[in-house]
Amino acid sequence: MSLIVQKFGGSSVATISRIENVAKKAIASREAGHDVVVVVSAMKGETDRLMALADDAAGSNNPSPRELDLLLSTGETVTITLLTMVLERLGAAARCYTGAQVQILTDSAFSKARIQDIDAELLRDDLGAGRIVVVAGFQGVDENGSITTLGRGGSDTTAVALAAALEADECQIYTDVDGVYTTDPRVVPTARRLEKITFEEMLELASLGSKVLQIRAVEFAGKYQVPLRVLSSFEDGPGTLITMEGDDMTQGSMEEPLIAGIAFNRDEAKVTMIGVPDTPGIAAQILGPIAQANIEVDMIVQNISNEGLTDFTFTVNKTEYDRAMQILQQQANALGAREVFGDTGIIKLSLVGVGMRSHAGVASRMFNALAAEGINIQMISTSEIKISVVVDEKYLELGTRTLHKAFDLDEKSGKTVSVEGQQTE
Amino acid sequence: MSLIVQKFGGSSVATISRIENVAKKAIASREAGHDVVVVVSAMKGETDRLMALADDAAGSNNPSPRELDLLLSTGETVTITLLTMVLERLGAAARCYTGAQVQILTDSAFSKARIQDIDAELLRDDLGAGRIVVVAGFQGVDENGSITTLGRGGSDTTAVALAAALEADECQIYTDVDGVYTTDPRVVPTARRLEKITFEEMLELASLGSKVLQIRAVEFAGKYQVPLRVLSSFEDGPGTLITMEGDDMTQGSMEEPLIAGIAFNRDEAKVTMIGVPDTPGIAAQILGPIAQANIEVDMIVQNISNEGLTDFTFTVNKTEYDRAMQILQQQANALGAREVFGDTGIIKLSLVGVGMRSHAGVASRMFNALAAEGINIQMISTSEIKISVVVDEKYLELGTRTLHKAFDLDEKSGKTVSVEGQQTE
Repeated sequence: MSLIVQKFGGSSVATISRIENVAKKAIASREAGHDVVVVVSAMKGETDRLMALADDAAGSNNPSPRELDLLLSTGETVTITLLTMVLERLGAAARCYTGAQVQILTDSAFSKARIQDIDAELLRDDLGAGRIVVVAGFQGVDENGSITTLGRGGSDTTAVALAAALEADECQIYTDVDGVYTTDPRVVPTARRLEKITFEEMLELASLGSKVLQIRAVEFAGKYQVPLRVLSSFEDGPGTLITMEGDDMTQGSMEEPLIAGIAFNRDEAKVTMIGVPDTPGIAAQILGPIAQANIEVDMIVQNISNEGLTDFTFTVNKTEYDRAMQILQQQANALGAREVFGDTGIIKLSLVGVGMRSHAGVASRMFNALAAEGINIQMISTSEIKISVVVDEKYLELGTRTLHKAFDLDEKSGKTVSVEGQQTE
Repeated sequence: MSLIVQKFGGSSVATISRIENVAKKAIASREAGHDVVVVVSAMKGETDRLMALADDAAGSNNPSPRELDLLLSTGETVTITLLTMVLERLGAAARCYTGAQVQILTDSAFSKARIQDIDAELLRDDLGAGRIVVVAGFQGVDENGSITTLGRGGSDTTAVALAAALEADECQIYTDVDGVYTTDPRVVPTARRLEKITFEEMLELASLGSKVLQIRAVEFAGKYQVPLRVLSSFEDGPGTLITMEGDDMTQGSMEEPLIAGIAFNRDEAKVTMIGVPDTPGIAAQILGPIAQANIEVDMIVQNISNEGLTDFTFTVNKTEYDRAMQILQQQANALGAREVFGDTGIIKLSLVGVGMRSHAGVASRMFNALAAEGINIQMISTSEIKISVVVDEKYLELGTRTLHKAFDLDEKSGKTVSVEGQQTE
């Protein structure tokens, strides 16, 4: 007998009949002999409804964070009671708990609280008595007794944290996709569901634009070595298991893929300062005001200096492009730069795979494949298990398909991996 | 500086603009130099919405009580956060608490829990810091940490219990009527708002059909000697103060009214067993099965025995009339009764007043006044501060007006008292 934590997002509990579907999955697991803990989000639309009320109440003010968290927490509280009622109607013994009741202790950073501790004893008693335990996702309580929320994707984090505290055998995240794919199947029809992927790869894929899982939940799962499985709420299937690197995944041998998946990101824009005097500390001078304005920077490239001048390029989220350009233009004179140049017509393509650690030549294979299709690379950035390039946005489909094929990810070509699903929350 | 607890029901917080109205009243009290604690109910309609979800979820089952209470408690939780946001927008410092957060400790009788203890320290700190404190009505927490609700009118009880715990100077219950009246102004246009009424009188009036205040809240206020004031959410005015008997209210002297108010009740039906052998224990034999069926009995009258036979009459709520008749008919043979007879065409008129304690002749004045109008009295029942009669339902208006006049309660005839308002929850 093993212990499984199952998490269902807002779409999966949007109506009573969908909640019935969730209840049936939990009961099936229970009948298969497992102890079952179910974590649920607010019913789809409920959080928006509550936010609209808060906006009305607060008017031109921002809603006070402590009260807003308490308000939003009612969304999940409603779901856990309804799911428990449905479970009991279907004949299962069940009990539900809010975050505060399970003592999901967090810090006091309202709207983005971090879990500090969980008291799993209460739940162990229920599980021991044969009950399915239902826990509200997304919420916790701080040391003052104020209700907190964990921020976007918080229910995933709740599920993983509970799985860690209970030393669960598996944490199952039910979504509206049936697993993690080698890339977005809407772009590459031959994309394949991965059976397995490592935490590291999933983290890179998640941060590169995949919305299947929240980064924090994957980090958490990796840290506490909780096997995570992504699977569909709406159809049966094994989904994708996210786990530690095993012997079968480290080598990038012939049987194993060099890379796990290909991610793309349409949300970035490129900003360049051309002809800046290449003095020590120039990067900090350029990026300092950007950081102060709370604009997140992703890729940064500084070209080789030429006659004492250099070009400095970085990418930001498109929503912050205008502000970033404005700040750079203000700085340009002070820094003696020749020109400030921006481009929102770009995308980022990334290859991810633990296999590339031990295998040279991934980058050149990538660049060759793109070159063969006439795709010009504007920026390059690499990490231990990732290579990203920025190209013109018109190459999104062509670039992704080309790389998918170049690295043998196409369906029926062996074991594979992926990214870009729908939302989980 | 005094401490005031203010309670607003569901109609008073039905929309954000009504919540603004509540916030302004609280701020006005704060600016007048008082410490202010506000207790609120769920927004009107919200409890019904949640109940409908529970019914859907539970299907043919009853929703499990623990989960249902947790579900319903979210209604008030939403209101407290919104009111706090509005208070802050209007410039007031404020903080809100759920029942569990204030530690309104109750027993575990879900849906009708009783308050056992309140930890007022937390609130004292906030009040000391100049904050308006907003507390969710209707809800508490049991010793296991499960959320409980206090049942119908529970928010009134929360307000009074908080006022008692904080030793508040006054507990103000805002309703959609502007006070307690000598009788229902829709029936007697000359009915007058009372400035003062005693707890005892209010209890009798409440239990006789007034819906202005919940009985439990009045009992609680009386027990802990918390002055209660009923006043209107929607217009300014002093309302009616419910307090201990003072020197000015005990005597029924010329200046003081003999009676506080006149209540009527349309909800009862009369059931009679005719010609029952008058043996010891016969009353218990007749009422035993009624009690076992959980039918509440109000007035009971047993006539003088005549040739060893007696008639036994009692009143029940109209909704339970059919069941009561059925039970009596089943018993009639076994008891050797001649006949079972019922009548739903009755009403009950009641005079209430602490003045009648020390003043004989109230009953005869009442009976004379009714007789003078040709109103036949079918049943009589008396308590220390109340006389009730059952009459034909067609005499509701005439009977009430006649008594109102006979006891000098009409407007401009001196100081007065009343009953039968709208709902408070």
